[in-house]
Amino acid sequence: MFRPQITVVDCTIRDGGLINDSQFSIDLVKAVYKAVCEAGVDIVELGYRNSKKMFPPDKFGAWRHCDDDVLKKIVDKEKYPNTKVAVMMDSHKSEIADIVEKEQSPVDIIRVATYVKDIDKAIKISNAANELGYATTINIMAISHAIEWELDEALQQIEEETKASTVYIVDSFGALYSEDIDFYYYKYKKYIKKKEIGIHCHNNQQLAFANTIEGIIKGANYLDATLYGIGRGAGNCPIELLLSFLKNPKFDLRPILDIIAKEVLPLKKKIEWGYHIPFMITGVLNMHPDESIAFMKMDNDNPDKIDFKSFYEKCLDLI
Amino acid sequence: MFRPQITVVDCTIRDGGLINDSQFSIDLVKAVYKAVCEAGVDIVELGYRNSKKMFPPDKFGAWRHCDDDVLKKIVDKEKYPNTKVAVMMDSHKSEIADIVEKEQSPVDIIRVATYVKDIDKAIKISNAANELGYATTINIMAISHAIEWELDEALQQIEEETKASTVYIVDSFGALYSEDIDFYYYKYKKYIKKKEIGIHCHNNQQLAFANTIEGIIKGANYLDATLYGIGRGAGNCPIELLLSFLKNPKFDLRPILDIIAKEVLPLKKKIEWGYHIPFMITGVLNMHPDESIAFMKMDNDNPDKIDFKSFYEKCLDLI
Repeated sequence: MFRPQITVVDCTIRDGGLINDSQFSIDLVKAVYKAVCEAGVDIVELGYRNSKKMFPPDKFGAWRHCDDDVLKKIVDKEKYPNTKVAVMMDSHKSEIADIVEKEQSPVDIIRVATYVKDIDKAIKISNAANELGYATTINIMAISHAIEWELDEALQQIEEETKASTVYIVDSFGALYSEDIDFYYYKYKKYIKKKEIGIHCHNNQQLAFANTIEGIIKGANYLDATLYGIGRGAGNCPIELLLSFLKNPKFDLRPILDIIAKEVLPLKKKIEWGYHIPFMITGVLNMHPDESIAFMKMDNDNPDKIDFKSFYEKCLDLI
Repeated sequence: MFRPQITVVDCTIRDGGLINDSQFSIDLVKAVYKAVCEAGVDIVELGYRNSKKMFPPDKFGAWRHCDDDVLKKIVDKEKYPNTKVAVMMDSHKSEIADIVEKEQSPVDIIRVATYVKDIDKAIKISNAANELGYATTINIMAISHAIEWELDEALQQIEEETKASTVYIVDSFGALYSEDIDFYYYKYKKYIKKKEIGIHCHNNQQLAFANTIEGIIKGANYLDATLYGIGRGAGNCPIELLLSFLKNPKFDLRPILDIIAKEVLPLKKKIEWGYHIPFMITGVLNMHPDESIAFMKMDNDNPDKIDFKSFYEKCLDLI
């Protein structure tokens, strides 16, 4: 019943880090790594390797830079040989000089996140990382705002000019419906012949899991998810749902349930994510979530905090 | 872009009443009725008309019986002529004697909820209601537990023996994936030639909205939803998402956003619904939500309250 090519990527620390400037304790990251490995998840993404100039270490946690010596405190390849380690580099916020030879690093995969306009930067990083021995993916963010011929050209470039193993559909705004997933999947397939297609969804319209399933049905084999859907704004595809849906007997839900109970739900008292009306509104309107995140940060005593109708009307003026 | 046959049913008071024994204040029901009508929703379901013997009025609120004189305090057909009023009768928990001539009642539609085993009771109620002048629907609950030939026979009986306008697929346990919706839709279509097909989903796996969309894509024209997804356990398809997805210009999201802010979110402080791990577990395992509802009612100080792993293992023993 299962498709052996399917590869699940846990992005809990990386995407969750967008809520709290990557300020997770080392114990929390260790616990997440252990649970994800014991659940049989294929890849764990432990953060960004982004520029220290743009993300100064006195403001951002270690998981925004993912120095190899920090990662070495977490990763245990002897104990967990089946779970690969990934970090993400934003094409417009990272430096190639921060990548060292793969032999000196616990990182296996560098995932390059990019807007269509920065595709040439992404290709440069991906190729440099491949040269140094890493596998790479290219994750095209905000595709629902891409101008179609530019996206087409970017896909053709990725196919012809890179050795990235996988190209991702990233629904950054949580704006896509299943028919949109179909549309983008077939567009990708038109250009991408020698690589896998991946999918990364956001939950503004409670569709992250459903759209991931739609991707699977069409043929996407790289699937991003996070514990209890943690992630910026409305969050991501919940990994507990995804593993329950997938029929591969290598997955074990129990460590995931345990870490959600012990580490992830307590986090909800400090940082906020999940379905809420402001996130739904920006999702429905295919807008960047920044407006809704600012709305949600409003003081709870402010009566405007529940004026969803005015927020909706403001957003209608912005699109 | 829209399909004019699509009919949206708001079940906020009826399905939400399963959380609090239908103990909503008359002011709240008035506010919900007004908002739903002003949003252009086609049908509003104001509760159950179930047996007072089985649901004594000293324990259950007025919306468990929906006496016509109570409904008359809510319904204003002159002001809102385009929104029809429905009540639900459970085939095994209601009495035909409680239906009066339609002329004396603000009710337009009687929705008969039934398990497959009670289909003959449901047909009797549906036919009696039609005789008295009402439109009816038959809503087959818990189809994911139905034995296939019995469901087939029930569908054939409904087609041949009733004048119900619509037959519903009801995913009572929140267990279905999009491919299951396809399976049931085509099964229904094999027998149901002269009636519409409806869909009512639960959100245990965050799929209520997505599965409703899947129903729409296949051809279902009657769509159940509730404000902010209120409903027993993980809740239902959120109507704010559904109306945003549907392109019919008659719908207006604003009154829905307003009532969610002013009336529905405050309810969350008193009664609980929405995605949570115990509901997800019973959904994944295609189980009745009772076990998870009991788990959720556990005292917050009880350390077992977060022992999701043991709950999962207990459930595995129950299926």
